[in-house]
Amino acid sequence: RSMSTTARKSLTIGLIPADGIGREVIPAAKQAILALGSDLPKTEFVELLAGFEYFKRTGTALPEETVEILKYDCDCALFGAVSSPSKKVVGYSSPIVALRKELDLYANIRPVISVAPTPDEKPSVDLVVVRENTECLYIKQEELTIGPNGKEARATRLITERASRRIGQIAFELASKRPRKHLTVIHKSNVLSVTDGLFRETVCAVPLLPEVNGRYNDVTVMEQLVDSAVYRLFREPQIFDVMVAPNLYGDIISDAAAALVGSLGLVPSINAGHDFVMGEPVHGSAPDIAGQSIANPLASIRSAALMLRHLGYNKGAGRLDIAVDQVIREDQVLTPDLGGKSKTEEVVEAVLKKI
Amino acid sequence: RSMSTTARKSLTIGLIPADGIGREVIPAAKQAILALGSDLPKTEFVELLAGFEYFKRTGTALPEETVEILKYDCDCALFGAVSSPSKKVVGYSSPIVALRKELDLYANIRPVISVAPTPDEKPSVDLVVVRENTECLYIKQEELTIGPNGKEARATRLITERASRRIGQIAFELASKRPRKHLTVIHKSNVLSVTDGLFRETVCAVPLLPEVNGRYNDVTVMEQLVDSAVYRLFREPQIFDVMVAPNLYGDIISDAAAALVGSLGLVPSINAGHDFVMGEPVHGSAPDIAGQSIANPLASIRSAALMLRHLGYNKGAGRLDIAVDQVIREDQVLTPDLGGKSKTEEVVEAVLKKI
Ligand SMILES: CC(C)[C@H](C(=O)O)[C@@H](O)C(=O)O
Ligand SMILES: CC(C)[C@H](C(=O)O)[C@@H](O)C(=O)O
Repeated sequence: RSMSTTARKSLTIGLIPADGIGREVIPAAKQAILALGSDLPKTEFVELLAGFEYFKRTGTALPEETVEILKYDCDCALFGAVSSPSKKVVGYSSPIVALRKELDLYANIRPVISVAPTPDEKPSVDLVVVRENTECLYIKQEELTIGPNGKEARATRLITERASRRIGQIAFELASKRPRKHLTVIHKSNVLSVTDGLFRETVCAVPLLPEVNGRYNDVTVMEQLVDSAVYRLFREPQIFDVMVAPNLYGDIISDAAAALVGSLGLVPSINAGHDFVMGEPVHGSAPDIAGQSIANPLASIRSAALMLRHLGYNKGAGRLDIAVDQVIREDQVLTPDLGGKSKTEEVVEAVLKKI
Repeated sequence: RSMSTTARKSLTIGLIPADGIGREVIPAAKQAILALGSDLPKTEFVELLAGFEYFKRTGTALPEETVEILKYDCDCALFGAVSSPSKKVVGYSSPIVALRKELDLYANIRPVISVAPTPDEKPSVDLVVVRENTECLYIKQEELTIGPNGKEARATRLITERASRRIGQIAFELASKRPRKHLTVIHKSNVLSVTDGLFRETVCAVPLLPEVNGRYNDVTVMEQLVDSAVYRLFREPQIFDVMVAPNLYGDIISDAAAALVGSLGLVPSINAGHDFVMGEPVHGSAPDIAGQSIANPLASIRSAALMLRHLGYNKGAGRLDIAVDQVIREDQVLTPDLGGKSKTEEVVEAVLKKI
């Protein structure tokens, strides 16, 4: 497998709808990709299993086969969403967290951009959350003991220099290519002086790495404690350009940012590693609306665009993005989360017409 | 020392302004308390030292004397705000985190309420964050090791049944006394099934405790993952009434909620334990505006009111709250964070006139 487009004669995309509305929005993204025709090489899709529903049937949330096929047969993948058990379920572990780890998809990149009224105007919110995707509390090292006053549970939060450096490099690279060249490092080092201290110090030192060769000297760096970052996101989102954060803060901050642009149903992401990329809408499985055909497919279509751009298919990615923006601007065919009355399939049709 | 008002012939209040605007807003709160006259018993104030500035001068952020005087001489206290070092500083540890722990102030209660245009209207945001205040990542058990790929830092996140139960009890008690009787339990048990699983399960089981005696049967309980809680806070804040959360999520959520009501400069809190209470504005030390006499004193005055109400001085507390609400409603004398042009002292004067 190669990450360069020219070497690729065909493109194999794994589809993992998983739970709830994941099963409605991933087929939508597939349709949008198919509409790109000759902008992509011969494209094949492989449907793969995972999720909480699958766990309930089989006792495993992420079958080995899914991981193997992704690793050895696919060039990239799209993941839908996964439901959370409403009670503690023995043996269950989130398949998305496992996939990020198994495939070493260490960078979770989440652009949050409002659609301006016309293509020439500037969006009022235009930021990217770069979230470390493999460690922090997500390593799931937890233990339960019984002390004199009852149960005691402990979790380990891991922050390494290596993971902080590589996510810092992604963030600086991204910031250096954007017009504003601004990076905010999110942490809580006033409390977590060792773990967040290491994250902060490692990320801030990225521009000094020898291999960087001064390339990031024009990136302005700001730091922000996670609590006040959330506050400022709501009060003055325009101050943010690229935000880089450890895993859990990144999770929270990207949901906060999504609230600024009207709906989680609009916000895409990719989980990117050295040799694999997986698109994923930021929204969840939304059990309350699943099965009603009113899920917003736009975050998934945008995730497909992000994934394709990451693989070098800029033209196809651009066509998807422009089509989505046009549909939002026209404000005619939108799902209920955006105040519209349309069904998922109608929104997909509207997008397909613009592609 | 006793927590019942009737037993108290005098009231001794510790004042710990600490850093930055803490030094401007704590004196303001003192003036407001003094204005209550005979609604309080004979009141004395004790000025106490702590903070990052103090650390820089002396090498300790929280002198033992401060803790001793609080423990043995004071009935309650007001804490200002503490600055965070902009670089890692060896030996420094946040005095507010230490105080919460030393005095076992296990409940951090943060009401976030918008001021309605008239006293008869309902506020559009009216919620209380009940934040566990002694454990989670705030236990500051961190270690740094060197592995094959460089530095590795680990922090322990502790969640105990005991602390989860007592914060759950506070939250249910509060919810049961409010008109909507609604409680949202915040966690991230889809990732942290053991620690957040314990928090969730313990809090949700509070109504079943024998001593509760069915008292909370009419409280409606909802659960919300922390990331989507932040999202929903911004999209539909009116769905929340009381929110209970482990320490770090509570920290983030209360800042998020503060953004909804116009300014962090409005949001008060108390840190409450079995036999001590400490008021504290939710805002930070705001080094960017410190020393300019434009800090908003209202969060501190409201924190004084919360503290007094907790001690049973409902009349005095009510007078402070009504005075603050009137000043906000009149929209004439407000600090710049609220779009006004007034100085701290002018806002204090305006409040004093209404008391
Ligand atoms: C489903 C959950 C495990 C996941 C996360 O916390 O990473 C989700 O919230 C996300 O943001 O992708
Ligand atoms: C200053 C800091 C240690 C503190 C916290 O994280 O608890 C502050 O953000 C707060 O909310 O009181």
